Amino acid sequence: MQLGLVGLGKMGFNMRERLRAAGHDVVGYDRNPDVSDSESLADLVGKLEAPRVVWVMVPSGEPTRATVADLGDVLSEGDLVIDGGNSRYTDDRGNADLLATKGVGYLDCGVSGGVWGRENGYGLMVGGDAELVERAMPIFDALRPEGPRDEGFAHAGKVGAGHYAKMVHNGIEYGLMQAYAEGYELLDAAGEVTDVPAVLKAWTRGTVVRSWLLDLLVKALDEDPGLAELSGYVEDSGEGRWTVEEAINHSVPAPVISAALFARFASRQADSPAMKAVSALRNQFGGHAVHKAGPTSGSGETK
Amino acid sequence: MQLGLVGLGKMGFNMRERLRAAGHDVVGYDRNPDVSDSESLADLVGKLEAPRVVWVMVPSGEPTRATVADLGDVLSEGDLVIDGGNSRYTDDRGNADLLATKGVGYLDCGVSGGVWGRENGYGLMVGGDAELVERAMPIFDALRPEGPRDEGFAHAGKVGAGHYAKMVHNGIEYGLMQAYAEGYELLDAAGEVTDVPAVLKAWTRGTVVRSWLLDLLVKALDEDPGLAELSGYVEDSGEGRWTVEEAINHSVPAPVISAALFARFASRQADSPAMKAVSALRNQFGGHAVHKAGPTSGSGETK
Amino acid sequence: MQLGLVGLGKMGFNMRERLRAAGHDVVGYDRNPDVSDSESLADLVGKLEAPRVVWVMVPSGEPTRATVADLGDVLSEGDLVIDGGNSRYTDDRGNADLLATKGVGYLDCGVSGGVWGRENGYGLMVGGDAELVERAMPIFDALRPEGPRDEGFAHAGKVGAGHYAKMVHNGIEYGLMQAYAEGYELLDAAGEVTDVPAVLKAWTRGTVVRSWLLDLLVKALDEDPGLAELSGYVEDSGEGRWTVEEAINHSVPAPVISAALFARFASRQADSPAMKAVSALRNQFGGHAVHKAGPTSGSGETK
Amino acid sequence: MQLGLVGLGKMGFNMRERLRAAGHDVVGYDRNPDVSDSESLADLVGKLEAPRVVWVMVPSGEPTRATVADLGDVLSEGDLVIDGGNSRYTDDRGNADLLATKGVGYLDCGVSGGVWGRENGYGLMVGGDAELVERAMPIFDALRPEGPRDEGFAHAGKVGAGHYAKMVHNGIEYGLMQAYAEGYELLDAAGEVTDVPAVLKAWTRGTVVRSWLLDLLVKALDEDPGLAELSGYVEDSGEGRWTVEEAINHSVPAPVISAALFARFASRQADSPAMKAVSALRNQFGGHAVHKAGPTSGSGETK
Repeated sequence: MQLGLVGLGKMGFNMRERLRAAGHDVVGYDRNPDVSDSESLADLVGKLEAPRVVWVMVPSGEPTRATVADLGDVLSEGDLVIDGGNSRYTDDRGNADLLATKGVGYLDCGVSGGVWGRENGYGLMVGGDAELVERAMPIFDALRPEGPRDEGFAHAGKVGAGHYAKMVHNGIEYGLMQAYAEGYELLDAAGEVTDVPAVLKAWTRGTVVRSWLLDLLVKALDEDPGLAELSGYVEDSGEGRWTVEEAINHSVPAPVISAALFARFASRQADSPAMKAVSALRNQFGGHAVHKAGPTSGSGETK
Repeated sequence: MQLGLVGLGKMGFNMRERLRAAGHDVVGYDRNPDVSDSESLADLVGKLEAPRVVWVMVPSGEPTRATVADLGDVLSEGDLVIDGGNSRYTDDRGNADLLATKGVGYLDCGVSGGVWGRENGYGLMVGGDAELVERAMPIFDALRPEGPRDEGFAHAGKVGAGHYAKMVHNGIEYGLMQAYAEGYELLDAAGEVTDVPAVLKAWTRGTVVRSWLLDLLVKALDEDPGLAELSGYVEDSGEGRWTVEEAINHSVPAPVISAALFARFASRQADSPAMKAVSALRNQFGGHAVHKAGPTSGSGETK
Repeated sequence: MQLGLVGLGKMGFNMRERLRAAGHDVVGYDRNPDVSDSESLADLVGKLEAPRVVWVMVPSGEPTRATVADLGDVLSEGDLVIDGGNSRYTDDRGNADLLATKGVGYLDCGVSGGVWGRENGYGLMVGGDAELVERAMPIFDALRPEGPRDEGFAHAGKVGAGHYAKMVHNGIEYGLMQAYAEGYELLDAAGEVTDVPAVLKAWTRGTVVRSWLLDLLVKALDEDPGLAELSGYVEDSGEGRWTVEEAINHSVPAPVISAALFARFASRQADSPAMKAVSALRNQFGGHAVHKAGPTSGSGETK
Repeated sequence: MQLGLVGLGKMGFNMRERLRAAGHDVVGYDRNPDVSDSESLADLVGKLEAPRVVWVMVPSGEPTRATVADLGDVLSEGDLVIDGGNSRYTDDRGNADLLATKGVGYLDCGVSGGVWGRENGYGLMVGGDAELVERAMPIFDALRPEGPRDEGFAHAGKVGAGHYAKMVHNGIEYGLMQAYAEGYELLDAAGEVTDVPAVLKAWTRGTVVRSWLLDLLVKALDEDPGLAELSGYVEDSGEGRWTVEEAINHSVPAPVISAALFARFASRQADSPAMKAVSALRNQFGGHAVHKAGPTSGSGETK
């Protein structure tokens, strides 16, 4: 079927490839003319036959909200917008309500799989009316991995449910990554295991901890043993924060997901104000030797 | 090849099946005569041709140490003992030294895969001399999953390294399980996603969080939606504790693995002394309404 | 000076006593006629001479917002409202703006000290214009503990800063309480120390961990050795949640405060869905003996 | 009474001062002749009248064990050794047994108070026989703060109980310090409170969080606003590690104390191997921009 696709970055570009390979007619729009199939949102819409389906794949927050609003201005009654980005689920109700005033439908779709989705397919979680989900099903079927539909696709609930599911998915992802990372560091630090990458590789089949993330860690260590090319400064893109906030809203203990989030925060601090305060306290009560700030600060050198 | 196998519980029994299916000649010994192929350790040894290989698959700690010592009494120079249980790695040096006085070799082997290993194969991590590892390789090859050897087997290092790797594997496992569990609870509590099991199932292909543990969680929810048949009382079998202790020994931050461990401890407390102390403090300073112990204690009922 | 005081619950009642003992003329209003000095907000306002100062000490959230709005209707230009409750700091801007339309000033004041404040004085953190703070200083001076003003009172910043400071104060409080509680539980569980209350009491002078909370824990154990009268079900009143949310907003690692918050959440769960999921996983991969739900659920009994 | 005191470092030196000020006859020994009153342990013992009491105040571990053993060689039946250092409680049994073979008694005493103890007195927790505790009581009474004996001194139990209590005391201390530190960092980062040191100072009287550690933090901020002179590299001296290990041994959840410990570990890492692994994973699945190691590593600069 025909699909408009707004946003041809890393994710959108790959999705266009996968959809075209499945025989769909994709018209893309991106501000970057080198990858765009159309010159503007209006041009994109003009190239699609009604009733249209337009997939939005741009950064979450203001960019997505603005794109949805702009689409509301150029689409017609009966058209459908799908937000496939990492929007916070609280944005979806507003987007849906805005489009509803124009008679345009709205679905939110959490998309997981990263740059590998083009080849492997993407895991999809969709929120919105069943009728609209059904209309877009050929697109979902082309994007999701081969195999039974319910092993790579779910209609998660009403508007917002798709992004809610994706948010929790990413929160879990933080915890999983941190668990492997702690184990990796311990193996590395202890020195009992002489070939750490070999042990991680041996875990990829048969063991309880086998997973796609483990496969990726093995691949990373194969490409860069010791991970010498990387720093330990780790960004976060919001879903982990939202997951912890939702856990708090619902009184759900989330010690692991929050610990993984806080480890990222700490990884980005050259010098922690909290730990300076701890240092100051030790200095005050104990006359403990403390590290003075200076050229060697944070270098691990003791005085 | 020929193998003596001591311990035919859930793990040992299945391993015997897998080894026999691969054409190996396994003589088992277990205190339970219904499953045993021999009447005693001495009888087992008598049924094997020298140089013998005997695999020990009994509970860790005293049972394993005693079995290894007993084998030392009945085996001969040139024989080989493999401890495939979940022994603490600090036991291995002692076991190896004891057997070395008799000229008997020793390997420690971490085995992962649970009850599914009979069908899928087991992930194996081995510690000890390369020469002994090579001698037992036909057994390792039969136990490990099909596929390249290095994706289900590793020679991790010297004596103890196999169990060290398995200990860390299990520590990671605690973290992974807790991450999925927190996400599951949040989805369940929030109510935004109307079909939580369907969403988890949709994560099993294509997504970043896909894994074997996720497959098992989907299976569990398929068999018992709402997990109504289970209580939240969770045991631990030691490796998680040891992992955190090792992290402490090596100054490795392990917030996620320790949080997962402590969540298990807390799950086993009908009423937490620590939380009683917090209650007592709130009562003291705030005159806060606190829950009195009594018939409704822990029931979640507020006064 | 003269003060209107709305809300004569545990905190407000005690504050009226302390203010009167200091010679101030306090007119209280409470829905409970047994403690109220006036029949309505209008009646309260009528009993005060302009320019009036009215202190609001009612539950945070809707009750406080509604009371402030109602005061806006009956107060006059030049009057001043002080919110001394545990409002979220984000409420203060709205309250201040609403009152500003009537020419009524607004201060937010975090108040700490619990039921002991009547005797010991209250620690105060105030947000708002310096001029308004100055006008209410006789009240602040009467409420705060004896000693230098800056050891029990701070003008924390603009509107909202007082409640922000109080929010963080309470977040810290969660962490402190949990730290003592964990130590108490360990002493109790280990059995090495034969008289745990005596050790806690010995910590109250000279040691690094001496504090008012420790004094209270000693008092609680004196009144109820073993804390047998209390359950470990612990409520939370919001500030801990907000503190963690603010930490997330500002990318500040808060592992201790969040752990203390999550321990409270967990204390209120008769059976944890997350731990059921962990149980289900162990059951799936290991055939581990798991606890079935039933009459003994949560009782710590193993099968 | 007469006391031998071995170890005249920061703690021992101050204790000698306090004891002498109370009228006791202290003969000190230290390897540093500038502060020592005697030339050797033998010389020290020669200067004391039997039955002697010798207090050991040297670094824990090998130094303390060696000093106790050396004292065993030069003391006589009926003498008494008190280990006042931060020994692990598991060392005490061995020390006591060794001295018992010579008829020399042994007490272990946890001492808290830091450099302020000289002025304020020290909190004391003692393990060992009541009879020996009674014999040394004049010393304990001089060292502990003024006030009721049980508010600065406890006979905690049999040999080892004093150090056990001190270990837990220090574990709690880690949690308390981290709680204040997290709150401080949040206040600092949020910017809502314009004078953070003033707010902390306002907490020192009347509030629920008032404590000696808070007083010290206020003092530190007074001396160095912004804590600019310090780095956030924080050592640990063992008791926090032992506390978490004991918590694990007794299945006591210790999320706060362990989080505080791990924060110290992390503070000492210029670049975290675990966070490099997380970076590597994000890079693999998402093509996320990651920080490359290099001159800017850890500087917080993004590419």
